[in-house]
Amino acid sequence: MTDIEDEVREANEAFYRAFRERDVRAMEAIWASEAPVACAHPGMDVLRGRDAVVESWRGILNHDESPRILCTDVVVHVLGDTAVVTCLEGVSGDPPSLVATNVFSREAGILKLVHHHAGPLSTRSRHEPLGAPPTPTSLN
Amino acid sequence: MTDIEDEVREANEAFYRAFRERDVRAMEAIWASEAPVACAHPGMDVLRGRDAVVESWRGILNHDESPRILCTDVVVHVLGDTAVVTCLEGVSGDPPSLVATNVFSREAGILKLVHHHAGPLSTRSRHEPLGAPPTPTSLN
Repeated sequence: MTDIEDEVREANEAFYRAFRERDVRAMEAIWASEAPVACAHPGMDVLRGRDAVVESWRGILNHDESPRILCTDVVVHVLGDTAVVTCLEGVSGDPPSLVATNVFSREAGILKLVHHHAGPLSTRSRHEPLGAPPTPTSLN
Repeated sequence: MTDIEDEVREANEAFYRAFRERDVRAMEAIWASEAPVACAHPGMDVLRGRDAVVESWRGILNHDESPRILCTDVVVHVLGDTAVVTCLEGVSGDPPSLVATNVFSREAGILKLVHHHAGPLSTRSRHEPLGAPPTPTSLN
């Protein structure tokens, strides 16, 4: 695995950590602020533009029952200064239930999320249940 | 719209044309042969690597009842030599039923598909039915 792949994996994990810990400020910082962004939540229309995307995440993360999502089966494909991550998403104790695409691109040298698309996985029974989440980084 | 956006739109339409016309050779040419590729068909696990991805498309396009997919609501986000396309997919006469992410990257100067992810759209009733498909480029 290359250093760049490691860096992408860290950026991808930071996204899921912000999701899991309902950390709105971290989620806002993860999304690109200059590059155009898009986000397709499961079953939903595509949201385009930082304002719409960040607003949707604010709504999700401010919800008391937003799922504590874990990701597994993470594969990173590096394309120059952009990287496409594919992974499966789910909650601890259950097999993964969603398939996700996350695209990262550099902004002032830092990898930022420019695209997230998650959709249902109907082959979930083939996968092992997800383990326990990592220890939270904060107590929110 | 920039020239690059136009070029990406043409590459995206070429992908849907190959899909609709069940043109296996065109589909094989559309996918990157050097960059790493991934593909998530609706509800399915992620396929990684050109062999697995092209083989899946061969299976779909060789099927007599593979859907004649049209795309609509196409938005192109250019990120250097990579572009992320978001669009909705469906068949003529029905509202779109899938949301798709397509990522293109340059290979020897030509835009090639490196990633496709399509998942169900549960908000289909909000969209207008799709029109008639363009005239086929061949009689297959």
